[in-house]
Amino acid sequence: MTNNLTPLEPKADKATVRRHNLSLVLRAVHDAGEATRAGVATHVGLTRAAVSSLVEQLLEYGVVSEWGKTSSGQAGRPGTVLKVSRSGPAGLGVEINIDYIAVCVVDLAGTDRVRLVEHVDNRGVEPSEVLARAARLAARAIGSAADQELEPAGVHVALPGLVTGGTVRQAPNLGWRRVAVEGLFAQALLALRPDRRPLPVSSDNEANAAALAELWFGAGTEGVRSFLYLTGEIGVGGALVLGGELLRGAHGFAGEIGHTVVDPEGPRCRCGAHGCLEQYAGQAALLTAAGIDADAGARGVAELERRARQGDPSALSAVERAGRQLGVVLSGAVNLFDPEAVMLGGVYRELMDWLAPAVDRELARRVVSGLWSEDGKRLRAASPLGDAARGAAGTIVREVLADPTAYAERDAG
Amino acid sequence: MTNNLTPLEPKADKATVRRHNLSLVLRAVHDAGEATRAGVATHVGLTRAAVSSLVEQLLEYGVVSEWGKTSSGQAGRPGTVLKVSRSGPAGLGVEINIDYIAVCVVDLAGTDRVRLVEHVDNRGVEPSEVLARAARLAARAIGSAADQELEPAGVHVALPGLVTGGTVRQAPNLGWRRVAVEGLFAQALLALRPDRRPLPVSSDNEANAAALAELWFGAGTEGVRSFLYLTGEIGVGGALVLGGELLRGAHGFAGEIGHTVVDPEGPRCRCGAHGCLEQYAGQAALLTAAGIDADAGARGVAELERRARQGDPSALSAVERAGRQLGVVLSGAVNLFDPEAVMLGGVYRELMDWLAPAVDRELARRVVSGLWSEDGKRLRAASPLGDAARGAAGTIVREVLADPTAYAERDAG
Repeated sequence: MTNNLTPLEPKADKATVRRHNLSLVLRAVHDAGEATRAGVATHVGLTRAAVSSLVEQLLEYGVVSEWGKTSSGQAGRPGTVLKVSRSGPAGLGVEINIDYIAVCVVDLAGTDRVRLVEHVDNRGVEPSEVLARAARLAARAIGSAADQELEPAGVHVALPGLVTGGTVRQAPNLGWRRVAVEGLFAQALLALRPDRRPLPVSSDNEANAAALAELWFGAGTEGVRSFLYLTGEIGVGGALVLGGELLRGAHGFAGEIGHTVVDPEGPRCRCGAHGCLEQYAGQAALLTAAGIDADAGARGVAELERRARQGDPSALSAVERAGRQLGVVLSGAVNLFDPEAVMLGGVYRELMDWLAPAVDRELARRVVSGLWSEDGKRLRAASPLGDAARGAAGTIVREVLADPTAYAERDAG
Repeated sequence: MTNNLTPLEPKADKATVRRHNLSLVLRAVHDAGEATRAGVATHVGLTRAAVSSLVEQLLEYGVVSEWGKTSSGQAGRPGTVLKVSRSGPAGLGVEINIDYIAVCVVDLAGTDRVRLVEHVDNRGVEPSEVLARAARLAARAIGSAADQELEPAGVHVALPGLVTGGTVRQAPNLGWRRVAVEGLFAQALLALRPDRRPLPVSSDNEANAAALAELWFGAGTEGVRSFLYLTGEIGVGGALVLGGELLRGAHGFAGEIGHTVVDPEGPRCRCGAHGCLEQYAGQAALLTAAGIDADAGARGVAELERRARQGDPSALSAVERAGRQLGVVLSGAVNLFDPEAVMLGGVYRELMDWLAPAVDRELARRVVSGLWSEDGKRLRAASPLGDAARGAAGTIVREVLADPTAYAERDAG
């Protein structure tokens, strides 16, 4: 996080200024990995005394800890090394997808500390039942986190659908319409932990969460700030990151690349329209084309990867065909957006070796600037660290970093 | 212009602060249409005395003028009304398109004061010759502007191609590759006015310029800040405006919607790929489908409009077919972007009555949020004030408003 790294002018009231500066100092420590009070003071442009007072408060909140002495850097006597806490507040992320549920606990430093995945077909199951199952997995993760002295500051739920205002407007592949996901999940979690303080619940689209994970833990760490993110699951999800910010759109529904038309006369899609990309390059289409049971889920994808590795012609041609369709659709998106890079996640990441050449070929042919090939590796596999559950957990961590006081007050309340 | 409407803190050096505040006051007068010194002071948060001194300077620069007294608003004695000058600095915009060249002079208030259009087929003509012709038209416009006591502060050239760093990287429909358009145009204009101070020349893609015109003079005035702009010419140009800012992309080439694939096996496009939208919904494709000479240009479009108005079946089906293809491609862009509105310009604006139903139908069917129809009129004809030459001229005006001191220094130098 590099935005907003300037101290507020002291025209705001004192409490607001202090609250802002607490975040400023905490984020400076977070971004640096480790820092001394003197180093932070130089970086954020506050006095050494002001920084010391702010650090005391952050130590009290339990979001920063002291780690011995350093003699490097500044002249004079050694400073105490500060890092963000590896215990205490954490982020809890839940990804509910078509054929699995994943839960992840990330600490303030961004490290993955708990990860649980349950393979289960959620299609045609009542939303309340799916959410109850996700809550059980989340409760187990909270238990494992507690063993490591971590306590989630909140839970963020990511789902494959149009999510806004705490509600899934629609998730065609789950068969959900107008599900109040935050309320139902909070209730299910509360039922499992009746005597514990309820965790704040927030929610988002799963491709958005995965793209943010990519930004925070993957591509962003290599300096890529504008990219198109595509994730292959049962559906095909997408998200756009521009200058380090997720593009949400006028109604919060930007990024829906899976329903780009490949052929207006093509097969009917779960969204109601015909010939959407999902019907050509989604997981089921890929498996079917390779002669594998479309409902075989993760096992099916592993089987497809195995066959491709062995050079099985029908597996290779299924992947190549999906790659061609992806390339055609991506060329349109690249011509429209001109991103620095295109990141492929989900099953596409597993199949990258066989998929990428076809995708790249179409992009090289169709990106009008002619810059696709000149510019080096713009098509990339998403980081294995960049999944939706981790992005969802990261969202909670970002909230703590952005306002540690709100966290501490809630924790004390 | 509403951004950046706060005075700088006086930590910057005095000259920088004054320069910034001069723009602040000028833009406040511009945005209000007319204002008193007291009104400006309240609006920008500077003292009345500071504003008076800044206004004196702006009067000297010739960018603001006094217009009698008002007794409205504030209590006490009447204030002098300030407006931006209707004489003095202006913007000169040049649009070089495939079958016409347009030149426009806009004053500081944004009013169109000179407009010249020359219908001429620029295909296959040497770039230097086309630019010399454009320079002749620009020189005539400068003459007409002088008759109205207006003097362009600079000239901005808009072209249908990939434009970056003063160079047209490629303009497939013109047949241009790597043309140093700013240098060649400046030279041609200097040759026509050898004893006058050379005008600064800048350049951009024509759809970008048209979208900015739409933002400044059309849609933006109705509060629409995020939209997709599509212009039908020989080519199909596009641009994206997000939150009042043009999306330029990583290399400056965003918005190229004309090369979205409709059918990978379709006819070869001037860009080198196959089956691009241009081949289905560009002006030539539209005319050909209606049985009109594809090279008939503006006359051909007028003929198509006349036939459609009379209910000629082949004209109607040609427009309907183009509308369907546009709708399919636009649905992909809307799913990706979730804009507030889609604006259709160029020949699409003329054909709106017959085109819009087909475009709208595809969008309603294919925008996954299901929000296309619910949300009211999101498909709109671009403003007739929103053409590329006007946007190009507006770019120069914005530069003067953003830094009147730079203009005055150049004018004096």
